[in-house]
Amino acid sequence: MTSDDDVATGHRPTGRAKGTLTSRETDFPQWYQEVISAAELADNGPVRGTMVIRPWGYAIWELLQAELDRRIKDAGAENAYFPLFIPESFLRLEADHVEGFSPELAVVTHGGGRLLEEPVVVRPTSETIINHSFAKWIQSHRDLPMIINQWANVVRWELRPRLFLRTTEFLWQEGHTVHASQEEAREFALCILRNVYIETMSEVAGIPVLAGHKTARERFAGAVQTWTCEGMMGDGKALQMGTSHELGQNFSRAFGIQYADDGGQLQYPWQTSWGVSTRLIGALVMAHGDDFGLRLPPALAPVEVVVMAVRDDAEVIRVAESLLSDLRAAGRRVRLDDRTDSGFGRRSVGWELKGVPVRLEVGPRDLGEGNVTVVVRHQRKKVQVRLAEAVAVVDEVLGRVTAELREEAVGFRDRRTVEVGGPRAAADVASTGFALVPWSDLGEEGERELADAGCTVRCLRRPDGGLAEASDAPDSLVAVVGRAY
Amino acid sequence: MTSDDDVATGHRPTGRAKGTLTSRETDFPQWYQEVISAAELADNGPVRGTMVIRPWGYAIWELLQAELDRRIKDAGAENAYFPLFIPESFLRLEADHVEGFSPELAVVTHGGGRLLEEPVVVRPTSETIINHSFAKWIQSHRDLPMIINQWANVVRWELRPRLFLRTTEFLWQEGHTVHASQEEAREFALCILRNVYIETMSEVAGIPVLAGHKTARERFAGAVQTWTCEGMMGDGKALQMGTSHELGQNFSRAFGIQYADDGGQLQYPWQTSWGVSTRLIGALVMAHGDDFGLRLPPALAPVEVVVMAVRDDAEVIRVAESLLSDLRAAGRRVRLDDRTDSGFGRRSVGWELKGVPVRLEVGPRDLGEGNVTVVVRHQRKKVQVRLAEAVAVVDEVLGRVTAELREEAVGFRDRRTVEVGGPRAAADVASTGFALVPWSDLGEEGERELADAGCTVRCLRRPDGGLAEASDAPDSLVAVVGRAY
Repeated sequence: MTSDDDVATGHRPTGRAKGTLTSRETDFPQWYQEVISAAELADNGPVRGTMVIRPWGYAIWELLQAELDRRIKDAGAENAYFPLFIPESFLRLEADHVEGFSPELAVVTHGGGRLLEEPVVVRPTSETIINHSFAKWIQSHRDLPMIINQWANVVRWELRPRLFLRTTEFLWQEGHTVHASQEEAREFALCILRNVYIETMSEVAGIPVLAGHKTARERFAGAVQTWTCEGMMGDGKALQMGTSHELGQNFSRAFGIQYADDGGQLQYPWQTSWGVSTRLIGALVMAHGDDFGLRLPPALAPVEVVVMAVRDDAEVIRVAESLLSDLRAAGRRVRLDDRTDSGFGRRSVGWELKGVPVRLEVGPRDLGEGNVTVVVRHQRKKVQVRLAEAVAVVDEVLGRVTAELREEAVGFRDRRTVEVGGPRAAADVASTGFALVPWSDLGEEGERELADAGCTVRCLRRPDGGLAEASDAPDSLVAVVGRAY
Repeated sequence: MTSDDDVATGHRPTGRAKGTLTSRETDFPQWYQEVISAAELADNGPVRGTMVIRPWGYAIWELLQAELDRRIKDAGAENAYFPLFIPESFLRLEADHVEGFSPELAVVTHGGGRLLEEPVVVRPTSETIINHSFAKWIQSHRDLPMIINQWANVVRWELRPRLFLRTTEFLWQEGHTVHASQEEAREFALCILRNVYIETMSEVAGIPVLAGHKTARERFAGAVQTWTCEGMMGDGKALQMGTSHELGQNFSRAFGIQYADDGGQLQYPWQTSWGVSTRLIGALVMAHGDDFGLRLPPALAPVEVVVMAVRDDAEVIRVAESLLSDLRAAGRRVRLDDRTDSGFGRRSVGWELKGVPVRLEVGPRDLGEGNVTVVVRHQRKKVQVRLAEAVAVVDEVLGRVTAELREEAVGFRDRRTVEVGGPRAAADVASTGFALVPWSDLGEEGERELADAGCTVRCLRRPDGGLAEASDAPDSLVAVVGRAY
């Protein structure tokens, strides 16, 4: 490497702090909206609260899906697909469940030009319809465990929609499992939390999460325990990124799922359900984005390296294409940007907005000296390297991006996490980050006080940050308090 | 190979011609339903016409999706995702489109507990909502071609549902493209037909298809030309397996999509749309299935080889596991069946029903002689092979299954395809297969006569079977007539 300069994109419109976006400090929600639009991640759909996921956003989702799907299958799940439409009466079979979801339902009353005898609900989640099938499929302990996952769209009518974070329709995976014992169900819910969700969020997306369980107030409608992963976004607010529920026997009793144990006795099995959604794309934007746009971890970048021809010059194009093919041969997702009829600065800003981890700039002046320029997105650093070393340097950079993004996010979160006692101090701290409060100083009453101040207990954990065991006394636990999306 | 016997499964319940199923000859629709159920492909959902795709069926779909998705991306498409809910008013913007789809719509009238101001339609197809986005995204000729694909669920209210073939909700991909010229749009529609659909159906699924275009009567609602792939099923009936439409400027005019050409003039672009669905799983069942169940081409088999331990014996299990790991190392999808507490015949019947292309039976008697048994599903042949040769033999068998299934299907179709003149003879022939009739002997009047006899023109082609060019006189073409699913 022969030099190490700060990036100059040559494109700084007036009226903005930096780049083309409102700065995060000035107006985080406005910045978020602008990034989503400028990086061409998504648009609002014509029906309120719906979302068009554009190709760049969808390509991120495809990569995330593949990472999750592989881990979900490794955990023993098989994918399947259950209907979008659920008879309205199914929802009523589990009392807490219907109470939780009724206000958010979309209801189909007409089909094929006629009024339906029984209205059908567009699934807000699929516990009811999947358990209806489980009741038919499960007879014996030999049928257990049953571990099913589906990738699907679900609908929850949103009054305050926000792209990726709260949309009337969203895409997700939802896992549903059936086990012979409570212990096995709990263990499986935790296996998904740790081996699928936390691992993907931390190792693949570079987003550190705090894990714990929800208070009774925040629990999933119908669950006996909800485990959660909570991330801190760039404004200090909390985002619930994924949940894994122990359902106890609530649904097996409501839907009449029984199995004959090895003594021939009929038993109600124990269940779990768990899901993550396109909300994770919102998490990527808010956890890693800077005032210049997205910063994508390579594993989730539709393009890991863009090779940019600075000018339309035969030698430049030849070298750019050769680098492209070397990088592709090394298994990288690469794109050639040879749109030399557009300004170079404008093109650079575009790739920066889209969060491409590395830009490789090939220009005649550099080439004359046997060099190309590597631009590292997450640090906004430029380095000139010898042409022959370019692929190796790119490889080295891509190898460290995710860990560096994660370190930065951990540092940010740690600086904004404060131990306090009692709800008032917690609400103060939660205006900029996370408060850690002993549950014994809070309790359900303190939780109500927090709610009045717009805060929530994101999760309960052991003082050392570990997940609580069934044997832990509630008063020995610590509440993580924040303002949530 | 040391022997070559017919398969004896040891499990033949009374009252059935062979195996566990109603024979295809006795009652094809009944056989179809039984295979779907016995192979655990799908169940009926609780809302009429909906379908639960079970893990075995969904795994086939995942393999098919991957094959299609790769080819669709190779054709230049990017994946995206558009909303499930479409404002009712959108449908009305294209006159033929609304006329075609209105009778099949599911309508959401209530959301979030309130009556909606404007009802929303659950997408029956996404031309309208996607073109609404295209109108925002497209300004200049530099934005063209725009080539978008989405994987999604769609809903068309079905009065006579049948699993996979006609379901109220189904899964599919739908491509939507925008081009600067009519020629380019036509070329693209044909590229998808040939390079994606016909290639996947023929080379991957082993199902031969006849390709051509639809008559005006059978055209997609809103298209100016519909290209189609038609397969012959095991009862001689036709199945429309995929369509690719030229939409002309119908939707660009209806949705106000315009681009500035290189002279700065605003122009309406030319469009295509194209789709295939979970119906293809029904095609696999009906084109290749026999009286013993499914016969899957290896590329679409969730398990290509099942290694069966005949008995619970240490050496048997050791060899079975070693074969499993050798096959897995060779890149095969394999499963070990060591459920030796279930009867061997019953297990064999189960794998046969599920259509696993090769069973590798490891038993103590064979092993004593240094052999294992390879059972080839599509031919129902057993061969004993030396243990050391087993992996190579399996490889050889898997390498020829698809071509042999295709040859068999081509032979069947050819034997049931007859050239005739006029609608009456065509209707006769169509009771058992395809009739080829000069369009000049048929025309729109003949087509109406066919409709009265329950037949349709599946497609029009050149006499040599090629696709018609725009310059071909209609009267020079040949109609393929059949009874359709």
